[in-house]
Amino acid sequence: MIDLYTAPTPNGHKVSCTLEELGLPYTVHALDLSKGVQKEPWFLAINPNGRIPAIVDREAGDFAVFESGAIMVYLAERTGRLMPTDPKGRSLVMQWLMFQMGGIGPMMGQANVFFRYWHETYQPAIDRYQKESHRLFTVLDGRLAEHEWLAGDFSIADIANWCWVRTHRWSGVELEGLPHLTRWVDAIAARPACAKGITVPPRPEKAEQVVKAGQSMVVR
Amino acid sequence: MIDLYTAPTPNGHKVSCTLEELGLPYTVHALDLSKGVQKEPWFLAINPNGRIPAIVDREAGDFAVFESGAIMVYLAERTGRLMPTDPKGRSLVMQWLMFQMGGIGPMMGQANVFFRYWHETYQPAIDRYQKESHRLFTVLDGRLAEHEWLAGDFSIADIANWCWVRTHRWSGVELEGLPHLTRWVDAIAARPACAKGITVPPRPEKAEQVVKAGQSMVVR
Repeated sequence: MIDLYTAPTPNGHKVSCTLEELGLPYTVHALDLSKGVQKEPWFLAINPNGRIPAIVDREAGDFAVFESGAIMVYLAERTGRLMPTDPKGRSLVMQWLMFQMGGIGPMMGQANVFFRYWHETYQPAIDRYQKESHRLFTVLDGRLAEHEWLAGDFSIADIANWCWVRTHRWSGVELEGLPHLTRWVDAIAARPACAKGITVPPRPEKAEQVVKAGQSMVVR
Repeated sequence: MIDLYTAPTPNGHKVSCTLEELGLPYTVHALDLSKGVQKEPWFLAINPNGRIPAIVDREAGDFAVFESGAIMVYLAERTGRLMPTDPKGRSLVMQWLMFQMGGIGPMMGQANVFFRYWHETYQPAIDRYQKESHRLFTVLDGRLAEHEWLAGDFSIADIANWCWVRTHRWSGVELEGLPHLTRWVDAIAARPACAKGITVPPRPEKAEQVVKAGQSMVVR
C-alpha cells in the first residue's frame, strides 16, 4: 500500500492521476494547507521541503518520495508502465516531464500568485507570467500537432502537463488558437482514471464531509 | 561525440559540469542569446522550447535532448555514473534533482528577473523570490547537515543544485548562517571537473576571442 499526502492542487493531482492510471491501491491523507500542516515535524520527516504531494511506499520499507515529478518517475519505474524502458523512449518522457517541472508548473504557478493571490494588482507581473505560460502552451500545441501524445505512448509526461494546463482559466490563460492542445486536454479528461484522479482529495467545499488535517480516507 | 548547445548560465553549466565529470568528449556550440539564436528554426528542431541547453548525441542516431534536467539523466544513464541504478538510490537523486528543477532554478531565476533585469524596482516581488530562494537554501542546508552529498554519493543532483546555488549573490541571497550548504558549495567548487564546467562556454567579455553564434569550439 502507498500513503499519499496531498491536497487538491495540480501537483497533488499529478500523483493521484498517476496512481489511478496505474491502478495501484493507495491511502489518501488530505493535508489542510491553510493550517500549515505541511510544515509540521511529522510531515517534514517525509518531505523536508514541506510541500505536497509526497508518498510513503509501505511495501518498500516505508520509503518516502517527495517532489511530484520524482514520485511519478518512481511509480512508473515501480510498475514498468507509463514510461518506456528503452533509453530514447525514456528520455523523451523525461524531457517533457522536465518541461512541466521547470516551465509549465512554475510559470502558471507565478501567474496564479500575481493574478489571484497578490496583495495588490501589479499588472506587469501578471502579464509576464501569463505571456510566458501561453508561450509554453504554444510549444505543447506544436508538439501535439504532430504527435498524439507528448512522448510516444500516453505517459507520465502527459499527466504532468495536463494537470496544470487543464487549470488554464485559473491562471488567466486561454486555449483559443491552440487546437492540438485543446484536443489533447479533452482526450485526457475523457480517461476515467484521470477524471477520477482530479477528484482526489475532494475539495472541502465540495466534499460531503470536510476532510481535515490528520484524517485520512481509503480510496480503494 | 556529443554536440552541446549552451550559454554561460546556470542551466548551461549543469550540462557542461556533468559532461566534464563524466569525461565525455563534446563539442561546444555557444549560442548568442542576446541575438535570439535560440529561436532560429535550426535550433527549434533540436529544442522546440527555444532554450539552452540542448544536446545532440551523434553516437545515438543524432538523438536530441532538451531540458537541462533531462540531459543530466540521459548522460548519467548513458554512462551508468553520477546516479545509482537501484530503485531507492535512483529515486533519491531524482527527488533532489526535481527539487532544483521545480524550486531552486525557477525561484532564483525569478529573483534574478526582478532584482537584476526588471524595468522598474518592484520590491515586493524581489522580496518574494529572494525569501523563497533562501527558504529553499535552508532545506538544502538541513539535508547537508546530515549527509555529505544530497543523495548518496556525489551525483547529478549535487551538480544541478550547485550550479544555481553558487550564483546566490547574483540573486541577492546570502549563505550566512548556512554552514552545511557553504561547506558543500566549496567542496564542489574544488572539484576540477566542476571548476572546468562553469567556464564552458567562456563569457564573451572574458574570452580571448568572442564566441559568436554559429561558431563552435572543440573542448576535447
